[in-house]
Amino acid sequence: MTETNTKKLHLTAFMRPVSLHTGAWRYPGAYPDANFNLQHLKSFITKLEAAKFDAFFMADHLAVLNMPVEALKRSHTVTSFEPFTLLSALSVVTEKIGLAATASTTYDEPYHIARRFASLDHLSGGRAAWNIVTTGNPESSKNFGRDQHMEHSDRYKRAREFYDVVTGLWDSFADDAFIRDRESGVYFDPDRMHVLDHQGDELRVRGPLNIARPIQGWPVIVQAGQSDPGRQLAAETAEVVFCSPRDLASAKELYADIKGRVVAAGRDRNHLKILPAALVVVGATVEEAKAKRLELDSYVHYDSAIASLSVSLGVDASKFDPDGPLPTELPDTNASKTSRAGVVQLSQTEGLTVRQLAQRYGGYSGLAFVGTPETIADEMAVWLAEEGADGFTVTFPFLPQGLDDVTEKLVPELQRRGLFRKDYEGSTLREHLGLPRPPNRFFE
Amino acid sequence: MTETNTKKLHLTAFMRPVSLHTGAWRYPGAYPDANFNLQHLKSFITKLEAAKFDAFFMADHLAVLNMPVEALKRSHTVTSFEPFTLLSALSVVTEKIGLAATASTTYDEPYHIARRFASLDHLSGGRAAWNIVTTGNPESSKNFGRDQHMEHSDRYKRAREFYDVVTGLWDSFADDAFIRDRESGVYFDPDRMHVLDHQGDELRVRGPLNIARPIQGWPVIVQAGQSDPGRQLAAETAEVVFCSPRDLASAKELYADIKGRVVAAGRDRNHLKILPAALVVVGATVEEAKAKRLELDSYVHYDSAIASLSVSLGVDASKFDPDGPLPTELPDTNASKTSRAGVVQLSQTEGLTVRQLAQRYGGYSGLAFVGTPETIADEMAVWLAEEGADGFTVTFPFLPQGLDDVTEKLVPELQRRGLFRKDYEGSTLREHLGLPRPPNRFFE
Ligand SMILES: Cc1cc2nc3c(=O)[nH]c(=O)nc-3n(C[C@H](O)[C@H](O)[C@H](O)COP(=O)(O)O)c2cc1C
Ligand SMILES: Cc1cc2nc3c(=O)[nH]c(=O)nc-3n(C[C@H](O)[C@H](O)[C@H](O)COP(=O)(O)O)c2cc1C
Repeated sequence: MTETNTKKLHLTAFMRPVSLHTGAWRYPGAYPDANFNLQHLKSFITKLEAAKFDAFFMADHLAVLNMPVEALKRSHTVTSFEPFTLLSALSVVTEKIGLAATASTTYDEPYHIARRFASLDHLSGGRAAWNIVTTGNPESSKNFGRDQHMEHSDRYKRAREFYDVVTGLWDSFADDAFIRDRESGVYFDPDRMHVLDHQGDELRVRGPLNIARPIQGWPVIVQAGQSDPGRQLAAETAEVVFCSPRDLASAKELYADIKGRVVAAGRDRNHLKILPAALVVVGATVEEAKAKRLELDSYVHYDSAIASLSVSLGVDASKFDPDGPLPTELPDTNASKTSRAGVVQLSQTEGLTVRQLAQRYGGYSGLAFVGTPETIADEMAVWLAEEGADGFTVTFPFLPQGLDDVTEKLVPELQRRGLFRKDYEGSTLREHLGLPRPPNRFFE
Repeated sequence: MTETNTKKLHLTAFMRPVSLHTGAWRYPGAYPDANFNLQHLKSFITKLEAAKFDAFFMADHLAVLNMPVEALKRSHTVTSFEPFTLLSALSVVTEKIGLAATASTTYDEPYHIARRFASLDHLSGGRAAWNIVTTGNPESSKNFGRDQHMEHSDRYKRAREFYDVVTGLWDSFADDAFIRDRESGVYFDPDRMHVLDHQGDELRVRGPLNIARPIQGWPVIVQAGQSDPGRQLAAETAEVVFCSPRDLASAKELYADIKGRVVAAGRDRNHLKILPAALVVVGATVEEAKAKRLELDSYVHYDSAIASLSVSLGVDASKFDPDGPLPTELPDTNASKTSRAGVVQLSQTEGLTVRQLAQRYGGYSGLAFVGTPETIADEMAVWLAEEGADGFTVTFPFLPQGLDDVTEKLVPELQRRGLFRKDYEGSTLREHLGLPRPPNRFFE
C-alpha cells in the first residue's frame, strides 16, 4: 500500500440539510423536510464518510435569517436542527469523519463553548472542530437582550480573548490527570488540574472546566472571517480557514495573505489549511452540468430573487424585462463597482436573461465548479498546485443527488489522480488534516 | 391486551455514568471510566429502555463541584459528558425512552436553551424534557464573569420569566406553518410565525426561534427546587418534580403541598408528577442488600467522608473514635437539630460506627430503598397509594450491577403487580407520563 507523494486535497462538506441553495427544496428528488429528518442526515454523512471526506460542517445562525419576508417564506433555510445536538447524534453513526460545529463568540459564554466542544470530542473519539464566528447578522442581538449588535472590531477583540479562554479551559486537566487508582481511592491528581483564573478586558472566567482534556488536546479551530481582523484572527488561531473567494486570482491573493500572516505570527504555514467554499455541480457533460444548474436556479422565485440582483447591481432591477438580456446602459451607482462588474460579466459569459441572473443571485452566486468529474478535477488540481487552496469546503447544489454525484463520480476521479485519500490513515480529525496535537500549556 | 386500572408508577433514571455515590467507582465490577465511555452509557440506556423506564435523566453542574480537594480528588463526579451532547448521541440508539437534560436559567440564554431542547425533541421524535435549575453552586458564578452568585430569590424570579420566554419561543411557529408547497414555491406561511418581542424585568428576547415547534409542542418541564420559591415555580410550570424527601411522612407533606399549589394555580393536579429521588439497592435477601450497601459505603475514604458527618452533626466528628459508636453525649450546636437527630437515629437503627456513619454521609445519605424486589415493591406501592409519590427518580448504587438488579429483578416484580407498564403505549415522553400536549399560545 504505497501512497504517492502528491500533495492532496482536503475536503469538508458545508452542509445545509436541504442545500445552501435557496431553490434546492423544489428540485426533483429533493427532500424538502430534511431540516428535521435525521434519517436523511444519517444517510448524507454515511456517504460522505464512505467517500473519506475530512469533515462534515454545520453553519449556524442565531436568528431567523434577515431577508424580506417574500424571500424568507420561500426559503428552507429558515429553520433546522441546532449544530451540537445534530452532530452529537451523527457522531454515533460514524467512526472517522470530522464534525465541525459553528459557535459564536459574541452571543455565548466560553465556559459553555469549551465544555460542549470537549464533550463532542470525547463522544466522537477526537473528531470535533469549532468554526469560530463573531455572528454577522445584526438581528441576533435582539434575541440576546441587546438593542445593538456589537461593533465589528469589538466582536473580533472579544473573539480573540474568547479563544484564549476556551483553549485555556481545555487545558484544565493534564492528559494524565485521571489516575483512577482503586487501591488508594484517588480518582484524579489535583496537582494535574489547573485553575485558569482569566481576568481580561472582555471576559472573566475562573475554571477549571468540569470535563477532561479533549481527545485531540483541543478540537480543531476553524475560522471564516474575511475582513482584516478576520484574517488576523485566523492567522493567530485557526487551523482551517473557510473562505469564499470569487475566482482563482482572488483566492491566491487571500491564500498568500493568510499564509504570510501565519508565518509572521510564528506558526508553521502547513498548520493552517485554506479551504474555499465551492458549489460543485457534476454532469456527464459540461453542458449537462450547466443545464442542471440553470434548472436549479429556475426554482428560485423571481419575486424573491430580483431584490438580490438589485443589490448587486446597485439599481432597481425589477424595472427591467425579466426575459430580456441585461440592459447595456445602466444608471450610475454608488454601490460596489466590483459587484456590478461581476453581474455584467456573468450576463455576457453565460448569456443569461435578467430573470436567470436574478435567480443566480437569489440562489447561490459564490464560487462554483460546474462540469464533468474530469474538468472539475482539472480545476481543483490547478487551485491546489497554484496555492489558491489546500482543498475545498464543498457545498452541494441539491440533495441527495448532488451529493451522490460528488461522492460517486468526482471523488473517485480525484482518488485515481492521487489528489484525494483512498482511506483514512488516522482516526482523529487532526490526523486527517495533518495537524499536530497541541501541547497543554500548563503541563508537560 | 387489557391493562388493569391500577394506578401505576413512573420511573426515571437519575444518571451519573459511574453512579451518584462517591465510592461507586471502586465497587467490584464498576466502570471507573464510564464518565467518558459512550459504550457504557449506550448499554445503560438500552437496558433502561428495555425495562420501559419513562426517562433517562442527566443532572448538570456549571463548575467543578465545591468540595474540599481531599474529597474532590477521590470522587468520580468531577467531570463527565455535557448533557446535550450526550443525550443527543443516546437519542440515536433508543426509540422510546425520554431524555431529560438539566439546564440553568441563571447562567444561560433563553434563546439557546429553547433552541437546544427543541432540537433534541425533533431529533428524538418527541422525547426531550428540561429540568429547570437555578444552579445552587456559588462557584459557578466565577465561570461566567460574575463575582457573586445571583441571590436565591432573584434566581427564581429570573427562572419564572425565563420559562415564559422559552415556552413563548417554542410557540414561534404554528404546528402547520411549514407547508412546503413545491408548486407555488412557498416553504412556510409567514402568517403562522409569531415574533415574541418579550420585554421583561430580567430578559429581552425578540424571536422568532429559528426552529420549528417541538414535536411535543413543548418538551416536558421538570423542576427540582425544594425551597418555597422552588415549589411555587414547580406548581406554576412543572410537569414533573424531582425532589428528595427523607421519608414517607415528609414526602406526603411535600406531595400535598405541591399538588395544592398546582390546583391553586388553576392547573389539573394530574398534570404534575412527583418523583422523589431514591437510591435503590436490590438483594436476594434484605440482609444481602444491606451488606451491599455497607460494602459500597466502605469505598468512601474516611478522610473525605468525616467532613460530611461533621456538617450533619454540627460538631467536629474527626475527634471521635472511628471504629466506636457515636458518643451518646454530643456538645451543643447551632446547626440544624433535625439533621443531627437524623444521624443519631441512623446510628441507632443500623448500629453503625462513626466511620460507617461518615461513609454513609460522604457516599449517599438521601432516601434509599434497600431490600428484595418484593420488599421494595411493597414500599413503593405504599408510597404510591398514600400519595407520597407518583413514581421515583431512581438512582443506582453502582453500575452496571446495581442497574441490572433494578431492571432485571425489581421492574419485573413491579410489572407482575400491575404497578409498572409492561410496554410503552405511546412514543413521546408526554405520552409515557400521561401529560397533554400544550396548545400553541399564539395559534389555534
Ligand atoms: C464557508 C463560510 C461559512 C460561514 N459560516 C458562518 C456561520 O455558520 N455563521 C455565521 O454567523 N457566519 C458564518 N460565516 C460568515 C463569517 O463568519 C464572517 O462573518 C463573514 O465571512 C464576514 O467576515 P468578517 O466578519 O470578517 O467581516 C461563514 C463564512 C464562510 C465563508
Ligand atoms: C433529584 C434532584 C436533581 C437535581 N439536579 C440538579 C442539577 O442537575 N443541577 C443543579 O444545579 N441542581 C440540581 N438539583 C438541585 C435543585 O435544583 C435545587 O437547587 C435544590 O433542590 C435546592 O432547592 P432551592 O434552590 O429551591 O433552595 C437537583 C435536586 C434534586 C432533588
